[in-house]
Amino acid sequence: MLTFQLQATDPHSKARAGCITTDHGQIETPIFMPVGTAGTVKATHQYELTDDIRAQIILGNTYHLYLRPGTEILKKAGGLHRFIGWQRPILTDSGGYQVFSLADSRKLTEEGARFKSHIDGSYHLFTPESVIDIQRAIGADIIMAFDECPPWPCDERYAEESMHLTHRWLDRCIARMQTTEPLYGYGQSVFPIVQGSTIARLRRESAEYIAAKDMPGNAIGGLSVGEPPELMYEMTDLVTDILPAHKPRYLMGVGTPENILNAIALGVDMFDCVMPTRNGRNGMLFTTEGIINIKNRKWAEDFSPIDPAGISRVDTLYTKAYLRHLFVADEYLARQIASVHNLAFYLWLVREARSHILAGTFPDWKRTILPIITRRL
Amino acid sequence: MLTFQLQATDPHSKARAGCITTDHGQIETPIFMPVGTAGTVKATHQYELTDDIRAQIILGNTYHLYLRPGTEILKKAGGLHRFIGWQRPILTDSGGYQVFSLADSRKLTEEGARFKSHIDGSYHLFTPESVIDIQRAIGADIIMAFDECPPWPCDERYAEESMHLTHRWLDRCIARMQTTEPLYGYGQSVFPIVQGSTIARLRRESAEYIAAKDMPGNAIGGLSVGEPPELMYEMTDLVTDILPAHKPRYLMGVGTPENILNAIALGVDMFDCVMPTRNGRNGMLFTTEGIINIKNRKWAEDFSPIDPAGISRVDTLYTKAYLRHLFVADEYLARQIASVHNLAFYLWLVREARSHILAGTFPDWKRTILPIITRRL
Ligand SMILES: [Zn+2]
Ligand SMILES: [Zn+2]
Repeated sequence: MLTFQLQATDPHSKARAGCITTDHGQIETPIFMPVGTAGTVKATHQYELTDDIRAQIILGNTYHLYLRPGTEILKKAGGLHRFIGWQRPILTDSGGYQVFSLADSRKLTEEGARFKSHIDGSYHLFTPESVIDIQRAIGADIIMAFDECPPWPCDERYAEESMHLTHRWLDRCIARMQTTEPLYGYGQSVFPIVQGSTIARLRRESAEYIAAKDMPGNAIGGLSVGEPPELMYEMTDLVTDILPAHKPRYLMGVGTPENILNAIALGVDMFDCVMPTRNGRNGMLFTTEGIINIKNRKWAEDFSPIDPAGISRVDTLYTKAYLRHLFVADEYLARQIASVHNLAFYLWLVREARSHILAGTFPDWKRTILPIITRRL
Repeated sequence: MLTFQLQATDPHSKARAGCITTDHGQIETPIFMPVGTAGTVKATHQYELTDDIRAQIILGNTYHLYLRPGTEILKKAGGLHRFIGWQRPILTDSGGYQVFSLADSRKLTEEGARFKSHIDGSYHLFTPESVIDIQRAIGADIIMAFDECPPWPCDERYAEESMHLTHRWLDRCIARMQTTEPLYGYGQSVFPIVQGSTIARLRRESAEYIAAKDMPGNAIGGLSVGEPPELMYEMTDLVTDILPAHKPRYLMGVGTPENILNAIALGVDMFDCVMPTRNGRNGMLFTTEGIINIKNRKWAEDFSPIDPAGISRVDTLYTKAYLRHLFVADEYLARQIASVHNLAFYLWLVREARSHILAGTFPDWKRTILPIITRRL
């Protein structure tokens, strides 16, 4: 069973520092979770995640892992941790979001979501019960409840019906959790998800519903799906006022470094996003000096380190000119270096945020660092 | 200036153990050189090359590096070593082979080879003098002489004329070496290349011509280009009888593990080949137990280590089932793991050969190991 110790709250914002304890180890918050879709954080070795990136927890995608390698192989392997050689905590999403963004076709009913695999065209059914079973088989330390994430914008009536469906599915998820056991001897906890689109009334209702379930942690879903950042912050602010302070709060799928610092100030503890890896593979680097498009000709003869702060080994081992050359030549190592660097930067950012929250200097630090790390070099 | 110390010669074969000393460090022979075409050994970090693969020297391709990033950038960087963050020795080929295999069109004259870049269609001229200048700018510890590598089969008349052209080009390369200096304070040596196709008379003539030049090391080119292995061994055997024993011998572009062990027995000291990386990226693994096509369904539930011998970190960190999953899901990490593993295997193989040469047990060891590592699992 996951526990959360609240270690400090910033006196000038809602930012918090805490510590999550799982059977696979502790997670110091605020934390960013690298996305390991199909059992691999793209283009990075497991030892780079621990030694260079200093990841404390990674995320797996239930939709992908269910389709490939499938739960039978994961069970035989003794769970995802053993399958991929990763000893630290893992969080899995419920698959709902990806059924709606990746599957070739899908149909939503009270029972669940029927969909066609984007890999081989086969038909499958996800229900609140089955996604709990799958996440049990994966062996995730943190299991996400099955939810519907409505598109943005969506009309109020759809948003409300969808939210109630998510709430009913949540009750079935919790019931399934209570009648099943972990398979590999490590505790598993479920996080419910607040929905309600960008409608304040619905977000409030959903947050109250979720808070009342008294689960070990809570998530905010349905944001960062195309709405203006101000709306995302407004909804987050409103929801974190309602979710209990002594439970970790996870804002799903967020975001840019700026999004993350702003959401930390609103009381969020956990984040995940494909941005550092996906944008990295396209040559966009987040550095302590600003944002770099490394493919740009201006870096061709810049023999300074990728990031002079030297957050990870790749930052000072390789130069900007070399990394640009690797991208221009379309070499694998380009994507490997950018992925390690960007993830290390994201983990550095949340570690810095944490240390400034603990020191009581978070707002000043945030005000100073944001213009630096968001400028385009 | 490169030196070679012959440390042991096997009493029952022509196998030798030795040590090459360069200004970037020593190389224990027999040695395999990973191919770093465009300034990167595909899908591997420089720290994996040193720590996991235990590479002592890598190879760069003059054709690729000349086109991209180009000699001006390499000069400004202070040479390829500094550009890519690699402190150990580097050997560069002369570019001749790749002009004929990669360039969009090319024309051979006494002066050199005119060709059209496969990247942007621009026209370029390689001459014996210019490829020495380029390799000076790269900062290679070992520079290869400019040669023509005739296709196989080729008629005796063409092979003889080509060989004489290579010999005349060699004289121009040596003259250029003698009238130019290293750019970065590290000594550079040129290795001439024996040609002559698979015609014993020509190979003998070429080996005598090359041996008489008294360069710090000698290479055997124009083999492993489609001829039967028996012919390759026959030519190698004949040439190593003529090349001086107190100079390292490099058999270019070879080969399979079996080719390498057989060529070591014939007195070859240095090898390079894209096979471990290229075949690795396609799912073919060389292991201490045999050859594995990791994409095969039979590995889907095999949770044993990639290679129980644990030559490199990836071998025991990851399982066959996981690596198969990564290949089936077409993940970057699949190619990264296979590249590190296969290169580590090749380096292990030559280290083992060396230690058995030093112990006087090379032929017995070779007889025992060959059937094991060449069987298909
Ligand atoms: Zn309602
Ligand atoms: Zn002749």
